Amino acid sequence: MYAQTLANLIDELKKMPGIGPKSAQRLAFYILQSSNKEVEKLLVAITDAKGKLTYCSTCFNITDIDPCRICSNQSRDGQLLCVVAEPKDLMAIERSREFGGKYHVLGGMISPLDGLGPENLRVKELLNRFQKENFREIILALSPTTEGEATNIYLTKLIKPLGVKLTRVAYGLPIGADMDYADPATLSKAFEGRREI
Amino acid sequence: MYAQTLANLIDELKKMPGIGPKSAQRLAFYILQSSNKEVEKLLVAITDAKGKLTYCSTCFNITDIDPCRICSNQSRDGQLLCVVAEPKDLMAIERSREFGGKYHVLGGMISPLDGLGPENLRVKELLNRFQKENFREIILALSPTTEGEATNIYLTKLIKPLGVKLTRVAYGLPIGADMDYADPATLSKAFEGRREI
Repeated sequence: MYAQTLANLIDELKKMPGIGPKSAQRLAFYILQSSNKEVEKLLVAITDAKGKLTYCSTCFNITDIDPCRICSNQSRDGQLLCVVAEPKDLMAIERSREFGGKYHVLGGMISPLDGLGPENLRVKELLNRFQKENFREIILALSPTTEGEATNIYLTKLIKPLGVKLTRVAYGLPIGADMDYADPATLSKAFEGRREI
Repeated sequence: MYAQTLANLIDELKKMPGIGPKSAQRLAFYILQSSNKEVEKLLVAITDAKGKLTYCSTCFNITDIDPCRICSNQSRDGQLLCVVAEPKDLMAIERSREFGGKYHVLGGMISPLDGLGPENLRVKELLNRFQKENFREIILALSPTTEGEATNIYLTKLIKPLGVKLTRVAYGLPIGADMDYADPATLSKAFEGRREI
């Protein structure tokens, strides 16, 4: 009983991740009730993003210029390389302003259940960079999940023999967390990684 | 550190209801990773919906033809009118296939806190229909909230003197509900509206 055009719009919105039938309906009505100018801005933003954005040929971050702003930034430490799974992880790290080196985006993590092996990640491209660039330290910054751990192990086996310093980010209690709400796995990692004060 | 075009897209998506920064980022990456064909379909669906959809000049449902498919459907009971707040309420009722009459969409409910008074609703248009159409019964199908109740009271005062039969949908326990999880207000309505069996 929806008008066909409305049903179409809801169907298209429903394809997006995390958008169920109810959310899709709410978004569709929002779009219908927005001014033409507002909707035009949304359309232009989508078209622009699709048209202009690409992967950086060096680090595989999403970018509108190649090499990306981070790779071409001379004030960043080019000897320090942080390996992440996805562009969104890179962005989270950038927001923390904690890291001043360069990145390498794998494009995922090893996950046999999803049919993702090392050959689906940008591992070859990472090894290629070792020949061209001169790294002092490689930091693995992958999520502490089964997939992240599998990828850590795989990359360690691969990179360690090259003789470069290899580290991974610390796992432990997140800042602001309540000790008694921490899960056993996190507590175990927190004890394992304890430091002298 | 997002590329500007990506930041733009995320900003535009963030304006939508129920879409926070995290969801907007997820949707943006989904759009970037989708094929051009998929994104094209989304763009066309949005443009079509904005371009073709309008409000029915009789019942104010969202439609692509005027009068809408429900208003122009001769097999529906034109003497039975169901008053709803929003097009999405109409659609929920249509999905239940429980109602075979016509509709009137108010475009909201009375809500002083949101600055919505009767003058913002399509009440005048409702009264106009009384002169042109011949109604046997008016059913108020508004959400059982403070706003719905206020609108029920307002419409009752307005319609009752016209001598037409006026009803409202039943409030009570929703089907599938657990008695002991029902809130006091619902239980009170369920007792008040009890029927002999």
